[in-house]
Amino acid sequence: MTAGTALGVKAIVFDTFGTVVDWRGSVISDLGIWGAAHDINLDWARLIDLWRDRYNPQKARVRSGELPWTNLDELHHEALLAVLQDLNAPDLTEAQVMHINRVWHRLRPWPDSVEGLTRLKRNFVIGPLSNANVALLVNMAKASGLPWDHAFSCELFQHYKPDPETYLGVCRMMYLEPSQVMMCAAHNYDLAAARRFGLRTAFIPRPTEYGPSQTTDLVPEQNWDIIATDMIDFAARMGA
Amino acid sequence: MTAGTALGVKAIVFDTFGTVVDWRGSVISDLGIWGAAHDINLDWARLIDLWRDRYNPQKARVRSGELPWTNLDELHHEALLAVLQDLNAPDLTEAQVMHINRVWHRLRPWPDSVEGLTRLKRNFVIGPLSNANVALLVNMAKASGLPWDHAFSCELFQHYKPDPETYLGVCRMMYLEPSQVMMCAAHNYDLAAARRFGLRTAFIPRPTEYGPSQTTDLVPEQNWDIIATDMIDFAARMGA
Repeated sequence: MTAGTALGVKAIVFDTFGTVVDWRGSVISDLGIWGAAHDINLDWARLIDLWRDRYNPQKARVRSGELPWTNLDELHHEALLAVLQDLNAPDLTEAQVMHINRVWHRLRPWPDSVEGLTRLKRNFVIGPLSNANVALLVNMAKASGLPWDHAFSCELFQHYKPDPETYLGVCRMMYLEPSQVMMCAAHNYDLAAARRFGLRTAFIPRPTEYGPSQTTDLVPEQNWDIIATDMIDFAARMGA
Repeated sequence: MTAGTALGVKAIVFDTFGTVVDWRGSVISDLGIWGAAHDINLDWARLIDLWRDRYNPQKARVRSGELPWTNLDELHHEALLAVLQDLNAPDLTEAQVMHINRVWHRLRPWPDSVEGLTRLKRNFVIGPLSNANVALLVNMAKASGLPWDHAFSCELFQHYKPDPETYLGVCRMMYLEPSQVMMCAAHNYDLAAARRFGLRTAFIPRPTEYGPSQTTDLVPEQNWDIIATDMIDFAARMGA
């Protein structure tokens, strides 16, 4: 029996952006090809970095109650309009802006994600526990073959991570004890919150998530229940 | 091009009890085997018929606001306790009552369901739109290989069908127009509501859902967009 199977875990939920999909690489590649075909020449690496910079402050405004519940597609849209202005982008049609905003629905998984998840699905209920909204998660899974059992989107709980309503919301919805649910993430802050609320934890490093000069989350910062090199190694450690 | 592909449907949602799974047959078989092994001798056919009789009045109390939102596992539990009393059942432990209540998580699909859904999943987002709660739907899918993309449980909308919040909730959550979403059901009332709110409709008869002497829903009562003989025929008519 491996360490993983001894834990009594029934369901595993996954951070998605960064842990399962390569959001930065996907956005640059997807919009690079599209932009070239439509003669829209923007520095897409710069665009995604500015876009993502606005993400934590936006979430903080929702989490503090300054903004009412607003889902991620809507936050992305608001931030995108500001970033396009910052970049002095050429005038775009509404359909073009929507196509850019929907790039998050088309993110591609890391090379090991689908195989690892497919193995884990045989033994566990698996789903994203992501700040992304349901449509984004379902469309992304559909496009890439992510074999989720259910999208435990934060939209269902009307709270963003790391609010307790998200982690404990999954437990309550599935009639599971926190110790029967494992959070898997490439981000130490997410696992620290999950552990605080009683969930099991699994860390997978994604050292190029933020690009070649990433400085954060390169190593596990606590003795997480499982520390794996990638999703396939994680599946093996869980006996799947 | 078949009639189905011409409709512009992006997502198909399914009534589950009766349309996808054989609830009455499953309960009688599952609890019959379990009861025999544990020396609990009840008339399981009588139990399931009495249990199901309480379902519509319970839903009506939630829909009218007389009861606050209560999910289906909880409604089932309340009704089960009353039915056990009606049947003068022997004393059962709490774990035994829970095992009986959880039989809904173990319902088995009709023989054509998994093959038809697996084909439909290639071309459409598919999910249950069911009065059942998320845990029930996810556990049921897991046990039987129902390949849902997402469980659009009525629990997410805190309303039971045929309230508009359920059908329109799926459209809103997925950023789809009602005409891009199809409701598939073995029940005319469910399709009548879906059509009233602008969704597409598909009927599959399940003439033994309520047992051998069923008198309702034997035939389509309106010219539904698709009328199929079973889930495989439905997939074929949708070009999948």
